[in-house]
Amino acid sequence: MITLSSDFGTPYPAAMKGVILQDSDARLVDVAHDFPRQDVRTAAFWLREVLPYFPPAVHLVVIDPGVGTDRAAVVLRAGDHALVGPDNGVLRPVARELAGGEDGIEAFEIDLGDPASSTFHGRDVFAPAAALVHEAGIGEFETREAFAPADDLVDLTFPEPTVDDERATGEVLVVDDFGNAITNVPGSILDGRYGDHVTVNGERAPVEPTYAAVDPDQRLVTVGSHGNVELAVNRGRGEAAFGVAVGDRVAIDLD
Amino acid sequence: MITLSSDFGTPYPAAMKGVILQDSDARLVDVAHDFPRQDVRTAAFWLREVLPYFPPAVHLVVIDPGVGTDRAAVVLRAGDHALVGPDNGVLRPVARELAGGEDGIEAFEIDLGDPASSTFHGRDVFAPAAALVHEAGIGEFETREAFAPADDLVDLTFPEPTVDDERATGEVLVVDDFGNAITNVPGSILDGRYGDHVTVNGERAPVEPTYAAVDPDQRLVTVGSHGNVELAVNRGRGEAAFGVAVGDRVAIDLD
Amino acid sequence: MITLSSDFGTPYPAAMKGVILQDSDARLVDVAHDFPRQDVRTAAFWLREVLPYFPPAVHLVVIDPGVGTDRAAVVLRAGDHALVGPDNGVLRPVARELAGGEDGIEAFEIDLGDPASSTFHGRDVFAPAAALVHEAGIGEFETREAFAPADDLVDLTFPEPTVDDERATGEVLVVDDFGNAITNVPGSILDGRYGDHVTVNGERAPVEPTYAAVDPDQRLVTVGSHGNVELAVNRGRGEAAFGVAVGDRVAIDLD
Repeated sequence: MITLSSDFGTPYPAAMKGVILQDSDARLVDVAHDFPRQDVRTAAFWLREVLPYFPPAVHLVVIDPGVGTDRAAVVLRAGDHALVGPDNGVLRPVARELAGGEDGIEAFEIDLGDPASSTFHGRDVFAPAAALVHEAGIGEFETREAFAPADDLVDLTFPEPTVDDERATGEVLVVDDFGNAITNVPGSILDGRYGDHVTVNGERAPVEPTYAAVDPDQRLVTVGSHGNVELAVNRGRGEAAFGVAVGDRVAIDLD
Repeated sequence: MITLSSDFGTPYPAAMKGVILQDSDARLVDVAHDFPRQDVRTAAFWLREVLPYFPPAVHLVVIDPGVGTDRAAVVLRAGDHALVGPDNGVLRPVARELAGGEDGIEAFEIDLGDPASSTFHGRDVFAPAAALVHEAGIGEFETREAFAPADDLVDLTFPEPTVDDERATGEVLVVDDFGNAITNVPGSILDGRYGDHVTVNGERAPVEPTYAAVDPDQRLVTVGSHGNVELAVNRGRGEAAFGVAVGDRVAIDLD
Repeated sequence: MITLSSDFGTPYPAAMKGVILQDSDARLVDVAHDFPRQDVRTAAFWLREVLPYFPPAVHLVVIDPGVGTDRAAVVLRAGDHALVGPDNGVLRPVARELAGGEDGIEAFEIDLGDPASSTFHGRDVFAPAAALVHEAGIGEFETREAFAPADDLVDLTFPEPTVDDERATGEVLVVDDFGNAITNVPGSILDGRYGDHVTVNGERAPVEPTYAAVDPDQRLVTVGSHGNVELAVNRGRGEAAFGVAVGDRVAIDLD
């Protein structure tokens, strides 16, 4: 199985699929091709949330603002999975998740010779590399000469929140398609508080387990499916109602 | 085969696919993941139009504004198909279509124990349930303990038009991506009238079998692929030209 | 393998998939369903760029502003591929590419009897025809009575640029989702000029092999993955920065 993630929109992902299917009859599963353009950080967040739900697979990831520059093309083996993409950090958070920590990650640089283009390595480098990893096997692809051990990879980490008994301070990591503002604050701070209120950036809001627990268009603070605190509106957009955007500080007072 | 329908956008559907593929190697086919947010009625219309074209399949449907509340999670067996989703009516119109009427539907409530989240039952309840129905078989999944007979399901019906020899009165059920306003008036009222005119909400418009039968940007009344009367514009948006939106009354005078 | 391309958005493509899967267990691969509405020319461009990357396949293409009129429904055999769609030119450029020229194309008209609708031949004509071609075999489908030799097909060609040692003059063929303005000028005019400048419509711009070779928001002229000259902006929209739209003239002075 090969999953595909990119910021390409259409129809460029289809060219990647064609290239893969020249070399492999793997099942192909799209994760998303509408990740925000060249936004390595947001893609890294979503990949960490979604890819661990898959059975062992090769994951092709092309969010690649540095295409054609000297940034490396890499494969990370993490647990039973392999991640194929540019060395710009986009693969690291999910690799740590899949490998159970940094030490479990094995990294390899891809060298398939000169690519046909300098502007579409998704098609000319990463897709054939993903097919090759799939055909060679996630556990042993490095026996192929296209792969050499790599180190000094670019890293990407998400900020850590500060949490004490009275207050949690973090930031908005992403806003999802529904308008839910997903923070880096662990949902556990809301344990036992459903039905109560907290104060978010100075304004009180109810804590509820579900969106529909409040009336339509009303704000709530909940624990999203990722396990983090989420600022939401029932049938509306939480990021607008709470007045926050990606990167904005979120202070939650628990009293 | 498992089809997937939701209002999730991306990348949440990929998490559902990962969960399914942990338990099943079913073919997965996306129906749509951009159904209007939390609009049970519109999704119900489209599912009724599209799913009957599939061979026997498990259809996973997650338009679920009440996620995490006490609304039930259900499977409806209808003909050779099984429909998996929330008990909010979204499955009923297509179930009636597939089962040849209400009496042919068999309903089961899903109980997989406490889900991992209260905000993403698509991933934590419906996806594993769909995989289980698929693996157990559409004809016999209820032998698994996760499924118990259900009754008193939430219903959803579309309004009936009134039709006589001179006039048909109905409403706009949905507007498709092209801007075609699809009504609940049966296309049969236009039998033998191609090339003639009718009066729609007081304004005359030509009746034609195809969009291109009128000049670009011109209005027409036609029979859409669903068999209903459709208000359209050749290479334009019918809902704007006819001044109608979903739910608006449409009176068609036939003289 | 059957690929699918249309301007349908959702959920109409799912109806085509259901119909195909009634008759075939072919692998289905989406190319794009968000091609610009009824824009035969743009779809023809993209299909020519993308489909040649696929292994032998049946390619279902439904950009069909003349649906239901007397435009023919056709299959073009081109190399090891078959292209199924309306006879409006959309299939011709890619057919020439796949067949190695016009002479390699074999054309057949589809006759499956009266279709169920006059407004959705994607579902009622092209999808069953694609399944039939797939099941019968790309090399011998014409033995089935649904297919008869066709001639006098509608053609579609892209304008030719004029190129000499000092200047290339062409036009913008399409703008991709990133905002890159893709011209019909061959990229070979930029050979040996990376790091230099050219003058595009009177304004100087750097020639670079990669987007990231210039600072964010800066313009560049490059060779896109299609091999043509592309007007781009690093992390921005080239068509806006260069002030061009599809069909606009592009004059590139090389001195």
